[in-house]
Amino acid sequence: MSRARARAPVTSADAVETVVRAGGARLAALLERTEERLVALAAAHGPTLARHATATISAGGKRLRPLLVFLAAGDRLHAAAETRLVRAAVGVELIHSASLVHDDVLDAAMLRRGAPTVVAAAGRTVATATGDLLFSRAFAELAAGGELDDVRALSAAATALAAGELLQREDAWNAGVPLERYLHRCELKTGSLFEAACRLGALGAGAPALAEPLADFGRRIGLAFQLLDDVLDVSGPATRTGKARGTDLLDGTVTLPLILARGRDPGLARVELRALATAAQAEELCDRIAASGALEAAKQQALEVVAAARAELPELAPAQRRALELVAEGVVERYA
Amino acid sequence: MSRARARAPVTSADAVETVVRAGGARLAALLERTEERLVALAAAHGPTLARHATATISAGGKRLRPLLVFLAAGDRLHAAAETRLVRAAVGVELIHSASLVHDDVLDAAMLRRGAPTVVAAAGRTVATATGDLLFSRAFAELAAGGELDDVRALSAAATALAAGELLQREDAWNAGVPLERYLHRCELKTGSLFEAACRLGALGAGAPALAEPLADFGRRIGLAFQLLDDVLDVSGPATRTGKARGTDLLDGTVTLPLILARGRDPGLARVELRALATAAQAEELCDRIAASGALEAAKQQALEVVAAARAELPELAPAQRRALELVAEGVVERYA
Repeated sequence: MSRARARAPVTSADAVETVVRAGGARLAALLERTEERLVALAAAHGPTLARHATATISAGGKRLRPLLVFLAAGDRLHAAAETRLVRAAVGVELIHSASLVHDDVLDAAMLRRGAPTVVAAAGRTVATATGDLLFSRAFAELAAGGELDDVRALSAAATALAAGELLQREDAWNAGVPLERYLHRCELKTGSLFEAACRLGALGAGAPALAEPLADFGRRIGLAFQLLDDVLDVSGPATRTGKARGTDLLDGTVTLPLILARGRDPGLARVELRALATAAQAEELCDRIAASGALEAAKQQALEVVAAARAELPELAPAQRRALELVAEGVVERYA
Repeated sequence: MSRARARAPVTSADAVETVVRAGGARLAALLERTEERLVALAAAHGPTLARHATATISAGGKRLRPLLVFLAAGDRLHAAAETRLVRAAVGVELIHSASLVHDDVLDAAMLRRGAPTVVAAAGRTVATATGDLLFSRAFAELAAGGELDDVRALSAAATALAAGELLQREDAWNAGVPLERYLHRCELKTGSLFEAACRLGALGAGAPALAEPLADFGRRIGLAFQLLDDVLDVSGPATRTGKARGTDLLDGTVTLPLILARGRDPGLARVELRALATAAQAEELCDRIAASGALEAAKQQALEVVAAARAELPELAPAQRRALELVAEGVVERYA
């Protein structure tokens, strides 16, 4: 389970485009302000950071986390609230970018979305420091805004991200990792920043009563995405995911497909992942997992999480609800 | 210029002991509370973090940064202020620990103060995530305290640390790096966290008028320490510093001794650091730098920074002034 964002869009590009189009000029303007602020921050710490942070930020995809901040805020906005929300959107995107840069260092990844990674372009020292700087700037951005609750939401998410990464290392090579523990790890690693984005949106819009239910929505969407991403690691095809099937298994990362498969094919409970030496052996294990029917079961579990996310949405204006539902649908479509 | 803290005590152990002894039961109690909180935080995120963060924190030396928080606060304390100060002390020490862990990853360092580093014990992934988690916890700790000014001081310092690291990479192998730029880098990399510690102490004690002058004191002490540390890299002896002379030069890091020496021995301005291939060649360059008289000049410059730090101290209670002066003396003694 490499972090989901490390290798594929978080939701279908179509869904995001539809949401942004439906959001009209105001949403477009908020996303534009977020973009401008990210670029300005990247340029504010000397040429090395400017080059690498700008490259990271430019390659940063569809800004789903900032989008969730604004969608969770809905239409309850006046000018001061917009400024707070843009700060929040910048903060979550900076944490996201920082974690991408550090992930690429750890994976020694050369390319991200077709562009050289910071570690490929400038080495581990610059990449680690670039990640640390983006990380620090995220907190500086929210502290400057003066909203302690926002700082708290972001530091909780950043802590969870790192804790999830550590949990994954603890569980490496353990084919018997409990399901509950795996799900908790996914929430930490992937759910927490989506959760923070939704919480920050509700808080920034002056709707604290919506903070918890919308945060739950975000957490579930992030969890579902991670589950589906983990299915893709086993199902492939490589032409679609951009990586060989079973890459996670070769890394010793045990995810939902193997966890469900080992109950259906008891021999899999005793599989020795360290013995996997080649891509062909990993594909063979993927085939055996698929033959157990575990992929359908895993997908079904993810769809149930998305359904729960939608069902538990609080009462919202119809346009806001529709936008959040579209994001949820995008997570599912990406798999379909 | 490896970050100063990466390889030697920041100030003489004697000076710190004298200060702590003179601070009496109250200072001892504050340092004890800081220690307990650090241990509790390290234990709060699962066994992997507990093992590695606890090891890092236990090996963390003399807690000079927390000490500076408390010394900058002086005697103006009531119970609520003490709680705020302990949070601040924990925050600066967590940022410090996080940067140590990341430094060790970059240097592939095996030992720190005689104990295995996180990267040696558990690999790069765990070490990077451990650093990220300590980093996040620092902000969570201050955000929980509810003092935005404290969050701001810490995020500024964390940003400066990373920016200093990036600046160092920009200037790598450049024997002609301007003096001003080198000094700025030292302030970012080493001065900023000392500065934040003193600022947090003044703010926490409810003495905002003292925040700037005490922050200046901290920045200068940090700067002086870095200058002296950079002298030690050239002067050795290795038996004292624990590393071969010229280690920084071999890494392409140009510091004060070479910067001053190149004005005295013009051939040094054209030295090609990339051509240094062996420890013996690095030592030879150290000898040439020393022969120019640059080491005495560099040491003198550091002493002047310490003298300025002492001279510019604001009006303080005699005991508080004496304690801060002792820390300043400790920085100098360490070199003597």
